[in-house]
Amino acid sequence: MKRLLPRDGVLVTPMARLGVCQLLAAIWLSAAILSVAAAQNSTRDQLPSWNDGPAKQTIVAFVEKVTTEGSPEFVPPAERIATFDNDGTLWCEQPMYFQVLFAFDRIRALAPEHPEWKDKEPFKSVLAGDLKGLAAAGEKGLLETIAATHAGMTVDEFHALVRDWMRTARHPKYNRPYNQCIYQPMVELLRYLRANGFKTFIVSGGGVEFMRPWVEEAYGIPPEQVVGSSGVVKFEMQGDKALLMKEPKVEFIDDGPGKPVGINRFIGRRPIMAFGNSDGDLQMLQYTTAANVPSFGLIVHHTDATREYAYDRNSHVGKLDKALDEAKSRGWTVVSMKDDWETIFPK
Amino acid sequence: MKRLLPRDGVLVTPMARLGVCQLLAAIWLSAAILSVAAAQNSTRDQLPSWNDGPAKQTIVAFVEKVTTEGSPEFVPPAERIATFDNDGTLWCEQPMYFQVLFAFDRIRALAPEHPEWKDKEPFKSVLAGDLKGLAAAGEKGLLETIAATHAGMTVDEFHALVRDWMRTARHPKYNRPYNQCIYQPMVELLRYLRANGFKTFIVSGGGVEFMRPWVEEAYGIPPEQVVGSSGVVKFEMQGDKALLMKEPKVEFIDDGPGKPVGINRFIGRRPIMAFGNSDGDLQMLQYTTAANVPSFGLIVHHTDATREYAYDRNSHVGKLDKALDEAKSRGWTVVSMKDDWETIFPK
Repeated sequence: MKRLLPRDGVLVTPMARLGVCQLLAAIWLSAAILSVAAAQNSTRDQLPSWNDGPAKQTIVAFVEKVTTEGSPEFVPPAERIATFDNDGTLWCEQPMYFQVLFAFDRIRALAPEHPEWKDKEPFKSVLAGDLKGLAAAGEKGLLETIAATHAGMTVDEFHALVRDWMRTARHPKYNRPYNQCIYQPMVELLRYLRANGFKTFIVSGGGVEFMRPWVEEAYGIPPEQVVGSSGVVKFEMQGDKALLMKEPKVEFIDDGPGKPVGINRFIGRRPIMAFGNSDGDLQMLQYTTAANVPSFGLIVHHTDATREYAYDRNSHVGKLDKALDEAKSRGWTVVSMKDDWETIFPK
Repeated sequence: MKRLLPRDGVLVTPMARLGVCQLLAAIWLSAAILSVAAAQNSTRDQLPSWNDGPAKQTIVAFVEKVTTEGSPEFVPPAERIATFDNDGTLWCEQPMYFQVLFAFDRIRALAPEHPEWKDKEPFKSVLAGDLKGLAAAGEKGLLETIAATHAGMTVDEFHALVRDWMRTARHPKYNRPYNQCIYQPMVELLRYLRANGFKTFIVSGGGVEFMRPWVEEAYGIPPEQVVGSSGVVKFEMQGDKALLMKEPKVEFIDDGPGKPVGINRFIGRRPIMAFGNSDGDLQMLQYTTAANVPSFGLIVHHTDATREYAYDRNSHVGKLDKALDEAKSRGWTVVSMKDDWETIFPK
């Protein structure tokens, strides 16, 4: 083939021009075909684990409405903030919040160094697997459990313990790692929203340092987009090393009315979409949908006793009562896991 | 011109093909020329307000080192976190922190509604312009000033006051709006880092709600990437409206050892670059550069009494003493405003 570079003041020889022309035409055609395929793919189904039904339809209709330039309800990308509760919304929270199960595993691991725990609540009940005794220890007992297992180490050391637990521990019902007990439809939804210019945040009552080590891989949400409950952290220089030590003291509870407060503190903008599953998400949903801009609220309703769990108004975790009533008057979308989700967990 | 649509099994007629060919060649050439121009632009000078010198060279050398794939010190984009102090680092902080000047202006505006302030410190001194009297009221006086001007309203109402002040108030020396008293070299640096895959954050002792309304326009930093001091905020439903009320109570001081704590709380990753100008940034710089990964610390030294201000070890604002000593042993870059900056403010 003749060379394509300029020669004798002519860009290319006639033969080469034909070659270039065919090449360019081929590139142009391929690009056109690819872009048509991409457009079809984007409008086709980015939510394959959702059954076709009102929940999926309202999500897609809202996203199309706020992302269509020229639409009266168009929202600029910078303001497309979507906040997601974690426990019961992005991953399973039964038979108990996974962070509590992690704390119990830590207590069992640390027990040999603490012979006094055998006779001391709440540790005694945890070690005996006595859930009634633990329940009797109440919130104070739970906080003691968290303090004993979540403090007295650096943030980096704690992250390493969480990562190790995610590798080794298994969910009692599903016999799979906890970070694979995430909801496939919600993972697709997160991806779909990001593909439409949304910035996705976790806003969870769970501990922020318990989530950060694994949520980026699981959900594509980076550590700086995780809002959660937290303990006091203190800066220390140990010789030449700069360390952050976790102290056994609660700093912030990101639950209920704490969720809009946490959103304001960390994000500083009102979300236009919020996703939850319990009364702990009520104020986040109210705060998100009470503004004058277009907004969207959604509740994941656990209705699938076979594939997952069925619970709402009387549950010990993830109690959904007031928020379910309010969903009607405020027009929040209620997802029935049984009916709306074709798949629950990643395959 | 003959039509370009397929006809008789032939995609285009010979004449049309020549037309398409020339069009495609033109597009292809333009694209090639544009991309060469873009590459030249990106490698040429993205920091035009910096004089050529060791400060600029160390910045560029570090950024090239950590962004070159295959380099032993390559850092993946997700970990390219850069944190910037605001007062004295991104904008001027003389003759007094601008947020304090804002508070004084608010006190003057509110004075008619508070006749008791005429005889009550620290308000009496503020209204009389008596800086000595105000200094005598100490930190307690300053906190009272902040409480009286930064609380008792919603977050949205406070943002509106800040925006209004930015439009109307003028800096006493430069006679320009405060949000134009930002450092042009640092604005270029922020843009340069983002163009190299960095995520840029403000980590300031200033109030987070005082910064959020204007920093996106000034620095290109969105509200969710602003870490600052904060007051307690409370969620309230007023009828059907969901509000966040600012209360007159300090929640978090993001200064000194509070900076690494704030970085961990909001970002959850250790930065690889940190920029400050005072001892309030010492721990942020220590925390950033004490890790084993490649890291970079920089101090803006105010050495230009003519174009800006000259101050360090004995200043009432932005005191730079310990951090200046530590810069030598830790290898932090010290920028001399007088020598390293060709321009100070945007033109």
